[in-house]
Amino acid sequence: MQRGRASIEFEEPPVIISAASVAGKKEGEGPLGSSIDVVEQDEMFGMENWEQAESAMQKQTADLALEKGGIRKKEVRYLFAGDLLGQLIATSFGTVDLEIPLFGLYGACSTMGEALTLAAMTVHGGYAEKTLAIASSHFATAEKQFRFPLAYGNQRPYSATWTVTGCGAAVVGKAGENTKGCPRITGVTPGRIVDLGVQDSMNMGAAMAPAAVHTIRQNFEDFGVDETHYDRIITGDLGEIGRKILLDMMKQEGHDLKDVHMDCGIEIYNSGKQDTHAGGSGCGCSAVTLAAYILPRLRAGEWKRVLFLPTGALLSTVSFNEGQSIPGIAHGVVIEQG
Amino acid sequence: MQRGRASIEFEEPPVIISAASVAGKKEGEGPLGSSIDVVEQDEMFGMENWEQAESAMQKQTADLALEKGGIRKKEVRYLFAGDLLGQLIATSFGTVDLEIPLFGLYGACSTMGEALTLAAMTVHGGYAEKTLAIASSHFATAEKQFRFPLAYGNQRPYSATWTVTGCGAAVVGKAGENTKGCPRITGVTPGRIVDLGVQDSMNMGAAMAPAAVHTIRQNFEDFGVDETHYDRIITGDLGEIGRKILLDMMKQEGHDLKDVHMDCGIEIYNSGKQDTHAGGSGCGCSAVTLAAYILPRLRAGEWKRVLFLPTGALLSTVSFNEGQSIPGIAHGVVIEQG
Repeated sequence: MQRGRASIEFEEPPVIISAASVAGKKEGEGPLGSSIDVVEQDEMFGMENWEQAESAMQKQTADLALEKGGIRKKEVRYLFAGDLLGQLIATSFGTVDLEIPLFGLYGACSTMGEALTLAAMTVHGGYAEKTLAIASSHFATAEKQFRFPLAYGNQRPYSATWTVTGCGAAVVGKAGENTKGCPRITGVTPGRIVDLGVQDSMNMGAAMAPAAVHTIRQNFEDFGVDETHYDRIITGDLGEIGRKILLDMMKQEGHDLKDVHMDCGIEIYNSGKQDTHAGGSGCGCSAVTLAAYILPRLRAGEWKRVLFLPTGALLSTVSFNEGQSIPGIAHGVVIEQG
Repeated sequence: MQRGRASIEFEEPPVIISAASVAGKKEGEGPLGSSIDVVEQDEMFGMENWEQAESAMQKQTADLALEKGGIRKKEVRYLFAGDLLGQLIATSFGTVDLEIPLFGLYGACSTMGEALTLAAMTVHGGYAEKTLAIASSHFATAEKQFRFPLAYGNQRPYSATWTVTGCGAAVVGKAGENTKGCPRITGVTPGRIVDLGVQDSMNMGAAMAPAAVHTIRQNFEDFGVDETHYDRIITGDLGEIGRKILLDMMKQEGHDLKDVHMDCGIEIYNSGKQDTHAGGSGCGCSAVTLAAYILPRLRAGEWKRVLFLPTGALLSTVSFNEGQSIPGIAHGVVIEQG
């Protein structure tokens, strides 16, 4: 059960019964576009403002994940969900109609890792047969929250990432006769905050890379494995610069991750053509990539085992303006072929 | 284990090994003042700004809870923590030095209920021997986040509450030979979002009362009990107006809670003398009251069993300014004499 200093191994691994992704136009035009369940052309999702749009997207994704699994919302005992906005308003207004007890989570862009971890712990602990993990972000709500008004047309450095408009939802449940082939969550390595003093909010990859290194190292140590144990080690949204730092730091410790590492932020856009600079970011980045790209490959048997590692940059405009650093966090989830 | 539609009963109840509270000058002058572990006269906690002050307070409270239990931080496997600020910055900067894997939580003022619930589930599930649950709020950070600059001297209606400057931390661990007399967490009823359309951010008691009613009703139903089962049913921060609504709504359903109900927001200040209007609020309100007032009474055997029910109002300035309602949530934790 407890493995090493920080990890958990599940003797009877919970499974991901179904998952869904909903995203915006830009994400639809990216490399994963054809795999995303719903690509919404209207960034407002038919609502009056961006926050309501993100809430509507959460609701749509949750409903779709349930529908794809043939599950009624009453069968879901607990909900683990979060987003990037102050006081989690996308989640509060997005999940109210589900009428499911909610654990509101904030882990910045690592939220899908935190949600899957707690969902798996809850199912494996016998507290629920089925749970739902959700994470979302929206380009326009995030720009409004963290940066400049869109109308201002602010220029962004090449180290900056582009917040994904997208939501991913996964039904995590107990394994049973009907769950054959479903990817299994066999272990987790919850991360701790790592702060190396990075202060540039336009270079969040650099702020998060040390946290990713810490959680990967902890995972290797706790499970007694190394990079050869995984078909892919998939970080959330380090982007091109964060990836370079991660590979360098891991190499210094004797681990060559070049071929096994993948980053959702790099996969989700074609940065050269889509003007997204260092890559995608936001809670929705890893959540959408999980549902649209990673889980299908595990289901198809193309990959046997991955370390899914959403990464979060813990800042607010208040802490940034007060000159604080940007601590990072990364939660690791081991997902294996069903 | 699973009880009814939403609750969990712990066969081997985790215990609250130790708990600590740190609060500000105003809270120190209130009825609970002499029971609070540390009353800090400097609202800045020796730091440069209010957010750092709240972080320093979290760190101080966590350290004190560990010290009171004779526990080293390395013994604590997971941390469940949150605050009211956008992107949880009080927690991110307050807990980094603990070097413990963190699950960041946002449940508005219900956060201590959410943290205790997940901590108990984690310990009972065998995932950890010891965990730490923390929640904080600070009057000045909350006013800055949600209302007006303090220097503006804004007037507040009598329905408004006063955000508690305070933090409560509790070490939740496995019962053992050394934990005799420690209060036990015997069950939990995680709450769901309830939105009856209240839009007045100066009357959050009214926004939260329906959520408290929902969770109490669910708790009664799931465990097959009623108000006579508890020595106290203790809401987080409904205040005078929220309490009245709660009692009215419960009475309509045939439950007279008048004598058994207690509200941390009412207990923590002497509203008449301290100009706190409807009472105290904030994550710190119920967390401080738990550590300073509730747990000591359970330890002393004065109470045998309480339903601790922190209540949260889910709003942000963005959602409020966009004309959205204020949904509520309440997480119930059954705590019994050791």
